[in-house]
Amino acid sequence: MSDGQQQEMGRAVDIALIHYPVINKGGETIGSAVTNLDLHDIARAAITFGVGTYYVVTPYTDQHSLIQEILDHWQTGHGATYNPARKAALERIRISESLEATVAMITEQRGRRPLLVTTSARVQENSLGYREARRRIEEGEPVLLLFGTAHGLAPEINESADYSLLPIESITGYNHLSVRSAVSIILDRLMGVRRDELQ
Amino acid sequence: MSDGQQQEMGRAVDIALIHYPVINKGGETIGSAVTNLDLHDIARAAITFGVGTYYVVTPYTDQHSLIQEILDHWQTGHGATYNPARKAALERIRISESLEATVAMITEQRGRRPLLVTTSARVQENSLGYREARRRIEEGEPVLLLFGTAHGLAPEINESADYSLLPIESITGYNHLSVRSAVSIILDRLMGVRRDELQ
Repeated sequence: MSDGQQQEMGRAVDIALIHYPVINKGGETIGSAVTNLDLHDIARAAITFGVGTYYVVTPYTDQHSLIQEILDHWQTGHGATYNPARKAALERIRISESLEATVAMITEQRGRRPLLVTTSARVQENSLGYREARRRIEEGEPVLLLFGTAHGLAPEINESADYSLLPIESITGYNHLSVRSAVSIILDRLMGVRRDELQ
Repeated sequence: MSDGQQQEMGRAVDIALIHYPVINKGGETIGSAVTNLDLHDIARAAITFGVGTYYVVTPYTDQHSLIQEILDHWQTGHGATYNPARKAALERIRISESLEATVAMITEQRGRRPLLVTTSARVQENSLGYREARRRIEEGEPVLLLFGTAHGLAPEINESADYSLLPIESITGYNHLSVRSAVSIILDRLMGVRRDELQ
């Protein structure tokens, strides 16, 4: 077994991309549509950094069908032979109808309820720094990282979670990263291989 | 002036997304097509971390027209009023026909030739660590970071550059991040605000 695999096995991190409930520009609660590249980019980042399962969370059954069609193309269709690496990444995706159902699946799989950690572009109560989050992950604590689509997670998700990671600070004050970028950066900060403190 | 702006002004980092010459799956040199989300996601990451200009490099004039149409929509069309934050991000984009033309523009603007630093999923000769790259950026040295589309930069670009950043190491051995993820992670490592060594 490689060092990388040993390290991966000691961790119990899953991620969820929430499409409902999230907020729109005006702060109202909405459900968002699934974006194809959110599936691909985030699955590729998840497998790179050793995330167990990438839950795509939406209550809409038409969206479940859409996700399944995309997954089928890459897992059993032409995509699977054309690009086996993509197949491996997308195999980490699981469709889920709600946050509650996601937590239940993880609790069943991992034998205990995961720590729920939200992410946000704004500082929330119960904030958690990267160093402390990384330490808990390295100790093997089950962690579910929650990411919001549209303009972010609905307030009730932030309020009911155990912690909220500190925002990715912007040097210019611009705080509108894509969720694909935010997931990539946060997984690197929490789970990336570091040969020194900056790599 | 905020601390963030002061920090930003001391830096002289530009990035270029290369669509030619890059390699395909078989290692042959090709030109790739521009992807809409490469413009958006990478522009948003660029402005977040204080990159000066995001050069989109392709020799194909039909691709220049396509990029310009997208930029116009967000800069002067409906998109500009609907989403001013996106307008601000996309304003950092400049279309360029080649790497040589890009280097010439930067040299003219910054008063000296930038250090050319490639990025790759494989270790190259002349490799540069993140700590050293970050140090040089903080000293104000002009740096042009080069990112490849398709299966990565053509060998002649890696060979002619000053340095190549070490790859983003994968814990699982999977080294197929999207270029959008790779840019985000690398900008965070080189230019992200750090309150401690892990944030």
